[in-house]
Amino acid sequence: MAELKKGMHLNLFLTSMGHHEAAWRHPSSDIGRIHDINYYREIVQKAEAAKLDSIFLADRYSVSKQAVKYGELGGGGIEPLTLLSALAAVTEKIGLIATVSTSFNEPFNVARRFSSLDHISKGRAGWNVITSGTDEEALNFNIERIPPHAERYSRAKEFIEVAIKLWDSWEEGALVKDKASGIYADNDKVHEIHHKSNYFSVKGPLNSSRSPQGHPVIVQAGSSKTGIDFAAQYAEAIFTAQQSLTEAKGFYQALKAKALEYGRSQNETIILPGICPIIGKTEAEAKEKEAMLHELTNTEYSLIQLSNRIGIDLTGYPLDEPLPKLPDISNIQGHKSRTQLIVSLAEKEHLSLRELLLRLAGGRGHFTIAGTAVQVADELELWFKNGAADGFNIMPQLMSEGFDDFIQLVVPELQRRGLFRTDYESDTLRGNLGLSFSKSDEKIQNY
Amino acid sequence: MAELKKGMHLNLFLTSMGHHEAAWRHPSSDIGRIHDINYYREIVQKAEAAKLDSIFLADRYSVSKQAVKYGELGGGGIEPLTLLSALAAVTEKIGLIATVSTSFNEPFNVARRFSSLDHISKGRAGWNVITSGTDEEALNFNIERIPPHAERYSRAKEFIEVAIKLWDSWEEGALVKDKASGIYADNDKVHEIHHKSNYFSVKGPLNSSRSPQGHPVIVQAGSSKTGIDFAAQYAEAIFTAQQSLTEAKGFYQALKAKALEYGRSQNETIILPGICPIIGKTEAEAKEKEAMLHELTNTEYSLIQLSNRIGIDLTGYPLDEPLPKLPDISNIQGHKSRTQLIVSLAEKEHLSLRELLLRLAGGRGHFTIAGTAVQVADELELWFKNGAADGFNIMPQLMSEGFDDFIQLVVPELQRRGLFRTDYESDTLRGNLGLSFSKSDEKIQNY
Repeated sequence: MAELKKGMHLNLFLTSMGHHEAAWRHPSSDIGRIHDINYYREIVQKAEAAKLDSIFLADRYSVSKQAVKYGELGGGGIEPLTLLSALAAVTEKIGLIATVSTSFNEPFNVARRFSSLDHISKGRAGWNVITSGTDEEALNFNIERIPPHAERYSRAKEFIEVAIKLWDSWEEGALVKDKASGIYADNDKVHEIHHKSNYFSVKGPLNSSRSPQGHPVIVQAGSSKTGIDFAAQYAEAIFTAQQSLTEAKGFYQALKAKALEYGRSQNETIILPGICPIIGKTEAEAKEKEAMLHELTNTEYSLIQLSNRIGIDLTGYPLDEPLPKLPDISNIQGHKSRTQLIVSLAEKEHLSLRELLLRLAGGRGHFTIAGTAVQVADELELWFKNGAADGFNIMPQLMSEGFDDFIQLVVPELQRRGLFRTDYESDTLRGNLGLSFSKSDEKIQNY
Repeated sequence: MAELKKGMHLNLFLTSMGHHEAAWRHPSSDIGRIHDINYYREIVQKAEAAKLDSIFLADRYSVSKQAVKYGELGGGGIEPLTLLSALAAVTEKIGLIATVSTSFNEPFNVARRFSSLDHISKGRAGWNVITSGTDEEALNFNIERIPPHAERYSRAKEFIEVAIKLWDSWEEGALVKDKASGIYADNDKVHEIHHKSNYFSVKGPLNSSRSPQGHPVIVQAGSSKTGIDFAAQYAEAIFTAQQSLTEAKGFYQALKAKALEYGRSQNETIILPGICPIIGKTEAEAKEKEAMLHELTNTEYSLIQLSNRIGIDLTGYPLDEPLPKLPDISNIQGHKSRTQLIVSLAEKEHLSLRELLLRLAGGRGHFTIAGTAVQVADELELWFKNGAADGFNIMPQLMSEGFDDFIQLVVPELQRRGLFRTDYESDTLRGNLGLSFSKSDEKIQNY
């Protein structure tokens, strides 16, 4: 459509069997292939054929012995950068966004691995920066308790600053590769960074030459006050969970305004609310599909899931009464904003604990919709055109059946409306997201 | 041949343009493709077609601004696990051995990444354990000086013990994946490890279910006294640099004897000396090829390389006189055994510094041979049949020309002699190396 400056961006939030807790139990799920690289290859190649901007893998650094019983580790536990590196070899255009925590890694290693992924994917790497929020994770890394929220973000900021310095330690054009003179690199364009501050001391340069995008695309999903501030300062794409158009607009405006304070324009922060679609030929069919998933949902597991998520043990609470008053959550140190969202959702809609569990089973607090392709496209259009979203983080309830519905039915509908591309604009993730190639360098390195 | 119980094992030590320092300057080198995943794919698919056991990537955690000028980072700086994950997606049989340091990583992350690589490769992962030996690397990880040799190995031992506990935290058969009952995993077979000792405190379980090999194959290359002890205790394949049959036999016997002390049989430690072959139709042609590489060698760079390797600045020394008496090297903290090898090589053969540099340019202390395919096969057979090697770490001087010579000329010669397989015995690295599947479990998990 002529009035649109640009279309929406669509990211596939990749999981093995789907985002619904019970997805793996669904008759259509191919649970036997949960570790099969060719299973993921098929999904991602479909996403690429549908011209999606990117795929994304979430991550955490622990698993509970209790939760594995009912399907935690449904993703098979393949580490995101490992899986995306493999998928880089069998795709050509689609962006590859991996989650890596700043709390349990060293910046030199992380900067290098993203530079490496950017090299082998020829410019399609993105880094979803997380600070990790649970003691269970800390216990796998020599510490008893996760550091406080503020301290984690403070470390994250320095971490990302070090990573940026390392990516910039190789200037554009540093690689000469002149066989005749024997000069491989112009070392006047390669710099030691001599970073030394509160958390890190790193000399540099990076031992990976400048990658096609210069910097991988920085992605973030924290929605607490500190998280929003961090995103406004560093993130180029933002994942967020929003339960309604109104709330999504509020978040969108707040984040763009905050980014402006950091001197960043509207186009430098792409906001992608999560959406969990269940698509039917009719609305009734979609609702039936949803009901079937609800039926397969194991409440015991859902309770463990929710308890883990908000850090409060709910397993003794009565299921068919309203969610009881919880202990004060203002001091929660992990997953702060998601806990707030969940509690206020239950309060606003007077949900019983069981009803809340079923609502969360599909998207863990993300917006869920069961309807026809036209209804889903209507909703996406509404959010996109009303300043609530620059695109969406697609979270299919079932993989691959539910994802197939989305790309076969919703994507063409969005394309008919001129809301989504019919071909890639670029071979890089930055190019397809319409992002510049880094502060210092506007063009991709001709390497 | 009937008298042979089993054939030799061959590993390709993968680099971008070849092992000779000047390889990238050679007319045949495809330097423009140094970051192209398809370039590496082609090489590794050739290695797989030739039935090689595995490919291997070395690693270090820094690069010097001086050395990049002349070709350091010739490998393009792609981090080993990233590149091998990508190559896992486009191969089916060949083993994938990545180097990862125990000094600059956390065991939870490393155990998980190797489990992930083992999953996506369906049982082909190997981990070359290094402790890293230079201050330049330490400076990228918040420390001023690399810890002493003994302390690094002490940390490495605990590191590997934690990794093994994490891999074993999922028993065989823990994954149930029963849709009907909703039981995904039998959590009685999933264990917290509660490790707590000098260097690490890790609760577990690993957030990656048991991988096809159970444990990746453990590889090691340290040749100091401590290194040999470590290898004898943990390593299943050992890379080593040996300059002659006599020395190689000595090393081989010492290591197997030491392994026996740890209760490990002959077959549990596969010793693979490095060999740098230059192959010609005639010996004269091979020597010409070698001379051409020598001619392309930049002495200034070689001196920097050697200085970095042994940790002593040699850049002021006269080139055409014998290597002068070096400061006492018994207190060297990094790359101890290699420095000893280099110094004694120069002394024994009365080499000038320049001659030493040219000898090292091809293989950094590994055994080099320029000859016909028959001559190279003769040498391999001699070492293999005389208790000096269970196979070889092939280090082509030129990639891909020199490697093509090896697989087109030497491999068929070895096969004719019954010394090397004509087809893979197994789909896993353990299977092809004839290693068992881990102490506790003899069979691959049917997952």
